[in-house]
Amino acid sequence: MVVEPKQARFESLSLDSGATLSPVDVAYETYGELNRNKTNAVLILHAFSGDAHAAGIGHDGKPGWWDNMIGPGKAFDTDRYFVICSNVLGGCRGTTGPSSINPATGCPYAMTFPVITIGDIVRLQKMLIDSLGIERLLCVCGGSMGGMQALQWAVSYPDAVASAIPIATTARHSAQQIAFNEVGRQAIMADPDWNGGNYYGRKPPGRGLAVARMVGHITYMSDDSMREKFGRRLRHREQYGFDFEVDFEVESYLRYRGSQFVDRFDANSYLYITKAMDYFDLVNGHGSLAAALEKTKARFLVISFTSDWLYPSYQSLEIVNALRSRNRDVAYCELASNYGHDAFLVDVAEQAEVIRGFLARVARENV
Amino acid sequence: MVVEPKQARFESLSLDSGATLSPVDVAYETYGELNRNKTNAVLILHAFSGDAHAAGIGHDGKPGWWDNMIGPGKAFDTDRYFVICSNVLGGCRGTTGPSSINPATGCPYAMTFPVITIGDIVRLQKMLIDSLGIERLLCVCGGSMGGMQALQWAVSYPDAVASAIPIATTARHSAQQIAFNEVGRQAIMADPDWNGGNYYGRKPPGRGLAVARMVGHITYMSDDSMREKFGRRLRHREQYGFDFEVDFEVESYLRYRGSQFVDRFDANSYLYITKAMDYFDLVNGHGSLAAALEKTKARFLVISFTSDWLYPSYQSLEIVNALRSRNRDVAYCELASNYGHDAFLVDVAEQAEVIRGFLARVARENV
Repeated sequence: MVVEPKQARFESLSLDSGATLSPVDVAYETYGELNRNKTNAVLILHAFSGDAHAAGIGHDGKPGWWDNMIGPGKAFDTDRYFVICSNVLGGCRGTTGPSSINPATGCPYAMTFPVITIGDIVRLQKMLIDSLGIERLLCVCGGSMGGMQALQWAVSYPDAVASAIPIATTARHSAQQIAFNEVGRQAIMADPDWNGGNYYGRKPPGRGLAVARMVGHITYMSDDSMREKFGRRLRHREQYGFDFEVDFEVESYLRYRGSQFVDRFDANSYLYITKAMDYFDLVNGHGSLAAALEKTKARFLVISFTSDWLYPSYQSLEIVNALRSRNRDVAYCELASNYGHDAFLVDVAEQAEVIRGFLARVARENV
Repeated sequence: MVVEPKQARFESLSLDSGATLSPVDVAYETYGELNRNKTNAVLILHAFSGDAHAAGIGHDGKPGWWDNMIGPGKAFDTDRYFVICSNVLGGCRGTTGPSSINPATGCPYAMTFPVITIGDIVRLQKMLIDSLGIERLLCVCGGSMGGMQALQWAVSYPDAVASAIPIATTARHSAQQIAFNEVGRQAIMADPDWNGGNYYGRKPPGRGLAVARMVGHITYMSDDSMREKFGRRLRHREQYGFDFEVDFEVESYLRYRGSQFVDRFDANSYLYITKAMDYFDLVNGHGSLAAALEKTKARFLVISFTSDWLYPSYQSLEIVNALRSRNRDVAYCELASNYGHDAFLVDVAEQAEVIRGFLARVARENV
C-alpha cells in the first residue's frame, strides 16, 4: 500500500535563538489509525539524514527508512498504534529549511535561515501533534539524533509523553561528536560551489557534501562490520592498480554513498542540522543531567549497541544513571551487534522484541 | 645543539610497481656517534606526516618530533647509540616525492610520480644504511606508519636487523583504516585548486588538505582525550553564537591544525603516502602473516596503547601471535594511555622505559 505524504502549515515558530520563522511547513506521514481517545499515537523521530517516510512504500516505490520496525505486526504495530513521523525543521524533505523560499524575499533562505536547536525541532513537532488533536503521545522514539529529540520531548513536554525510547544517542554531544560534524561542515564550506550557501538553481557543493557523507558513513559502521563487509577486497582488480582510481571495495562503497547522498540531501541542511546536534546538551541550563531529567514523567527504555563507537553505550548509561538517581522509571538494554551505529536501522531483531514488550506494557497502562 | 640536516643521493631506485626513479634524494639526520664496529646504529622510522628531524633542535629552532625519546640519557640514548632518521620516499621534507623536479621534464613530478609502497620506502632506507657502511642495524623502530616500515625491514632484510620495535601499528591496513585515508584523498582531489595535482607554483589545494588533516586529527586522539582537552567548552564565547563561526574549542583546534598543516605538507605527498599505507599488507604474497614473519631474525618488541582506536591493540596482537606461532622472539606491551593513537608521540614515559630495557639487552648481545 502506497503511503500518502501529508503536509501541515503553521503560522509561526519561535526559536531558541530568539528568531521567529513564519510560516513553517511540516512534511509528515502517518501509519495505522488514531483511536477514539487519541491515546495510541507514537511519534517516530528520524536521524540526521532521515525524513518523514519512515514506513510503507512511497510514491517512488521505496520503503520507509524504518519499515523493518513499523507496520502491521511489527515492533511499532500499526494494527494497534497510530504512528507519526515528520521531517525535521531545517531539513530538505518537505519541512521548512534553508532550501525553502523565504516569503519575505521570494528567494531560498540559504544561510539567512536561523540557526536551530533540537528544542526548536521538537517545538515544531509539538505543534503538529497538537494540530492532530493528540494531547499525550503514547511513545516518542528515535535513534541517534532521533533519540535526542525523544529526550527533548520528555524534558520539554513531560505531560505529553507517556513513554520515551532514546536509541543509540546521547544527552549531549561530546567533543569527538562535534569534531566529526565540524569536519563535515568544513568540507562543505570548503567547496567553492557552496558559495556562501547561495547555490540554489546552480551547481550545488556536491564534492564537499560527498566528502562529508563519506566521513559520516565511516562513523556509522564499526571496524568489525567494515572488515566483514569489505576487508581488503579489491574492486574489479586482481592486484593493486598503482594509480589513484578505486583499488579497494571500501573505496568504491564510500565514493558511491557520497555521490548518492548529493542527489537527495541539501548541503545547507547538513550545516544546520549538524549544528543543532552539536548544540544539544540537556545539562545546559539545568546544572546536571539528573536535574534536567527530574521533571520528566515518561517511562523510559534506553537502548544502545555494543559496537556503536559514535554514540557509545557509556552515553546511554549516563542517561540511565541520571534517570535512576531521580527515581524515574527506566529500563536499559545494551544490545549485541557488530553493525556499529547503523545497528538501530539494520540489526533490528532484538531491538524490535524489547520495544514490542515495552510498548505493550505502556499501552496497557495508557491506551 | 643545532642538528645539521644531511642529504644523500642515489642513482636509481626500483619500485614494486615496476617503475624506476632516478635520481633519488634522501634527507636524513643523525644523532650520537657510530661506533668503530658500526654495531650501534638505530633507525627511527617516522609516521605519516613526520620528517627526518626526529630529535635535537633544528635550524628553525624547533625540536624534533620524537625529541622526548631520542637524546643523551633518553630511551634512544645518543650517548650509546647512533640514531638515524630519514624522510620517507614520496615525502615533501627533503626526500624525493611528487613535489620534486622530474629531471626528464624539468617540472615537478606531480601525479606522474609513481605510486609507491612501504616496501619501496624501506628499500630506499636500506640504500641509505648501506651507504653509511652499516651492515646490520641494532634496531629499527617507529610508530604508526613507522611501525609498518619496521615490520617491512624485518621481513625484507632479516640479516640487517637485530631488533625491531613496531609501535601502534598493523601488519595490514584494515577497511576502516583505508576508508579514513580515502576520505582524506577525496577531500584533496575535490578541491579545484588540486587541479589534477598540478598546483606547484600556484595556489595549493589548501582547503581540501585542511579537511583531510582535520579527519586525521580526530582519529589520532581518543574520545576520552578530546573530552579532557576540549569537552564542550566554548571558544571566546559565553553562549552559543547561533551562527557558523567557531562555537566550540574543539572546532577552533581542528581548524587551526588543518590550516597549519597546509603550510608544511604537500597535498600530493598526502595522496601518495596514504596510498602506500593502504597497500601495506604483509600477508600479501605469503599466504599468512605467520609465513611472512617466519624468515625474520630480529628480536621484536611490539607496543600498543589501550585507547588507540585507529591502530587498536588487536592488530598488534595479530603480529605478536604470528611471531609466536613461528617461535620468533617477541615481547608485547599494551601500555595504558588516554591519548589514543597520539600516545606514542606524547605519552612516552612508560614507552621510554620498556624501550630502554629492551635496547639494553639487544645491545649487550649485539654491540
